[in-house]
Parts: sequence; C-alpha cells; structure tokens
Amino acid sequence: MNNLTMPPADSDLAYVPFVNVQNMMRLIHHVGLEAALIGIAEAIEQDFRRWPAFDKTPRVASHSDVGVIELMPTSDGTLYGFKYVNGHPSNTRGGLQTVTAFGLLADVATGYPQLLSEMTILTALRTAAMSALAGRVLAPEGARVMAIIGNGAQCEFQALAFKAICGITDIRLFDIDPAATAKAAANLQGSGLRISTHDSAQAAVEGAGIITTCTADKQYATILTDNMVGAGVHLNAVGGDCPGKTELHRDILMRSKIFVEYPPQTRIEGEIQQLD
Amino acid sequence: MNNLTMPPADSDLAYVPFVNVQNMMRLIHHVGLEAALIGIAEAIEQDFRRWPAFDKTPRVASHSDVGVIELMPTSDGTLYGFKYVNGHPSNTRGGLQTVTAFGLLADVATGYPQLLSEMTILTALRTAAMSALAGRVLAPEGARVMAIIGNGAQCEFQALAFKAICGITDIRLFDIDPAATAKAAANLQGSGLRISTHDSAQAAVEGAGIITTCTADKQYATILTDNMVGAGVHLNAVGGDCPGKTELHRDILMRSKIFVEYPPQTRIEGEIQQLD
Repeated sequence: MNNLTMPPADSDLAYVPFVNVQNMMRLIHHVGLEAALIGIAEAIEQDFRRWPAFDKTPRVASHSDVGVIELMPTSDGTLYGFKYVNGHPSNTRGGLQTVTAFGLLADVATGYPQLLSEMTILTALRTAAMSALAGRVLAPEGARVMAIIGNGAQCEFQALAFKAICGITDIRLFDIDPAATAKAAANLQGSGLRISTHDSAQAAVEGAGIITTCTADKQYATILTDNMVGAGVHLNAVGGDCPGKTELHRDILMRSKIFVEYPPQTRIEGEIQQLD
Repeated sequence: MNNLTMPPADSDLAYVPFVNVQNMMRLIHHVGLEAALIGIAEAIEQDFRRWPAFDKTPRVASHSDVGVIELMPTSDGTLYGFKYVNGHPSNTRGGLQTVTAFGLLADVATGYPQLLSEMTILTALRTAAMSALAGRVLAPEGARVMAIIGNGAQCEFQALAFKAICGITDIRLFDIDPAATAKAAANLQGSGLRISTHDSAQAAVEGAGIITTCTADKQYATILTDNMVGAGVHLNAVGGDCPGKTELHRDILMRSKIFVEYPPQTRIEGEIQQLD
C-alpha cells in the first residue's frame, strides 16, 4: 500500500495555522476592542474601494426549520477565503450561541489552505464595523443618539462600533425580552456611552438620528412601522440573512434611499426581498 | 469589555474533533485499503438509495488561470456537510499535490460543527469507490481487464477499487509521462493485480472491457477518440470538475448511454458539457 504514503504527512505543508476563540479574544483584548473595530472598518473600506477585484457569489445557504447554515466564498485572485456560519435563533434556549462561525484563507495559486480561524468573534466584530462604516458615510451629520432594537450579543458590538467610528454618545435600548436589555445595559456600563432602556420600540427610537435593528426573527417581523421613523433618520437593518427575515415595514423602504452590499444576495435574503 | 467574554472559551462545545492526515492514514491502514474502499462504496450506495433526502446544490467553484477551489455542501436534514477541495494540475511541478481537501460535519438542529477531517485521502478513496460502484452496476458482465489512461495518484486507487469491488484482474497503464506510469506500476506491485504498461492510449485500451480516464487536463483534451472504443465497453471518465475539462471525443458520447451523478452540476463541468 505504498500509494497511501504519498500525502506529505510530516511536511510543514500538512499543517495549517489555526486561531481559536481564546487566542482571538487575546488578540482583540491586546489591540483593544474599539481599535479593532476601527481597524476592521478600515480594511472593509479598502476592500469596497477595489470591489470589482472580487470574485463574488451569493452565499450558499442550507435552510432547515430551525435555522440556516451558510458558506460564503470569495476571492481577489490572490487570496481565496470562505466563512462557515450558522444562524439558529432557538439555540439560546439550550445555552448555545445563535451564531457560530469559522473561516479559511487559501492561496489561489496553489489552492493550499494558509490559515484557519474562528470567526464567531470576527463575525460579531465585522458586522458591527460594517454597520458603523455605513453609518459614517450615510447617517445624518451630527447624529449622536442611536436606538438599538434587539439587545442580544450583537447589540453591544453595534454600540461600541458606532461610538468608535461615528461618535455616537447615547444608546437607547429596547428588546421584547427585558432580560436581554438589562444584560446589554449592564455590559455597556463603563464603555463611555450614556445608556437608557425603554419599554417599547416606539419609545426607544424617540430622538434617535440612527436606528439599528438587530433582531434574529425569521417570521417577516415588522420591528419598525412607517409612523415610527421620522424623515432623515438613518436605519441600520442588520442581519437580513434569510428569506423571510425582515425587520422593516415595506412602507419605510418605499420612501427610503436603500444601500445594500451585494444585490444578487440581498434580493433573496435582505429587507429588499419585500420589494419584489 | 464584558461582551468579549461571552463565547464559551472553556466549554467542550468550543472544541471540534479533527482527523488529520496521519490519523486518517492510520485508520485506513488499520481497516485495510480494499476493505475501506468496499465500505465507502457501500455507504455511497446507501446514500444513492435515499437520494431525494439530500439538499443538493451544484458545487461552488472559484476558478483561476491555474486551478479551481471548490466548496461542496449538502445536507440530509440531520447532518450538514461540506468539502473544501482544490484542483491545481501545475502543483506537482512545485512538489505540491494536485488536490488537497478537508471537510466538516455539522448538526443541522444547532448549526454547531461536530467533526473536521482531512479529505485529501478521503477524496482519493471516495472517487475510486464511486467509480467502482458505477462499474459494478454498469460495466459488461465478466469484464476483468481495465485500461487506465492517466497514471497519477488517483490511478492506483482506481485499480485497487475495481479489483476489490468489480473483480478486475488486469490493469493496462498509459500516461503521456512515462515516469508516472512507471511509478504507478511499481506501487501496484504486490497488489495481486497483473499490471502492464503501454506506449499509447490506443495500445493500452486493447482488449479492455473497462476504460478509466483520470487525467487532470483542463484544455478540452481528447484522451479517447471514437475509433479507439469498441461497442459495449464501459468508460469511467473521472474528474470532470471544471468547465473545459473533458477527456472524451464528442462522438463517443453521441453513441453512449451516459450516467452522471447530478445533472445541474455535470452540465457545467462534466463530459456532457460537450452536448450543449
């Protein structure tokens, strides 16, 4: 069975560096969370500036009754990368996370993997950094107050990213689960943000120049209705990653300027699926 | 930064078992290579018998000038799996393998990864087992002689799988690189197969009831022309995994019964792309 000795089992090429959750946390703590968010936003902006260089394809989703598992590949001709990520809102009931993720970088010239990394933390940071980057470019100048509807783990990263990148000073929280709001408010103590908690979405959005929705509902939810959103407000609707997963009433979309990252994907999964 | 302590870094859930190349080789040596091929063929046959249970999608390919990187996801509603695999024929010039692969199994109910495994070896075994399974069902009864055109690493696995699963006793080798043929012939010594080497594809296919083509050319190669293939011969055209990667002259296809695994994929990548 000589033919089974062919793979270079002892070669350095057989080993791929792996960044686990603990090492990623150590790295982020070392850099500083807000500095990391700023750095990620800068990297994302650089990539948007060379958008045509990427081999883009809508993510490949496998849906089940309780969630979705997705692969997200891309390449710039030199590096190839993909992310594996799931979204299972009911996971929290069993003490599991809604989202877990890992990713791989590979060399396009050889197809050999070069780096494997946890991306649960990176997904949380990248989502918040992307939102704040869009906010920096699109939100009304001078906006200092942001409402966040949906106060799970992503809410805290959103708050810190908008503070670091957009100069937000006040966060107004609401979640249908008061315990989630209380936890987010407690975790954001000491962040330098003024935090207030509210009993309804309507109350939370009052006076906010930016409204962020980061819920995980798949049931064509309407987190915001038309009358709740004043003119000139910037809406940051996060996590449209499933057919049926929407947060905004269609009437809001009809009177808004809409910016999406990649229309072939967002038409299937994002808020604009309501505009078909 | 309380919010960065959320991932359960010390929980068992944060760890995913990984089967590396050395452990996979140890496992295969323990089971025995031919027994492993037979077992894999049985598992594949069971899955074909419940084909409608699978969530199927054409693999997601990222092509470059020198090769391809692909993701292959599927799910049966209970388990989700995907394979990462590259194909870079020029890699061998740099001492690298043409194909490397790894894969993941995940729980559909939670989206949590359950097993990460090397699949470089598994891909080689699965490809050969699938070929021999098809041969067992489709090849002329009593065929004992197989020609193999293309004598790279996959050639040896093909020879052993057709011996174990179809009762092939004689292997006739040809490759445009005589060194590849010599290496395959040497590695197959002691396998119990009668091995002969030949100077041309034409010479190799003489008297063969099964012809296996396993070259890695992307340039619309014509490994077999119409006159070389007699009536009733079973052709096992392996590894049509790129647009432009074909091995058979179109005239052969026109007079053959053609069996493919998954038409939406094979129409893009396989021999039948010539039939558009």
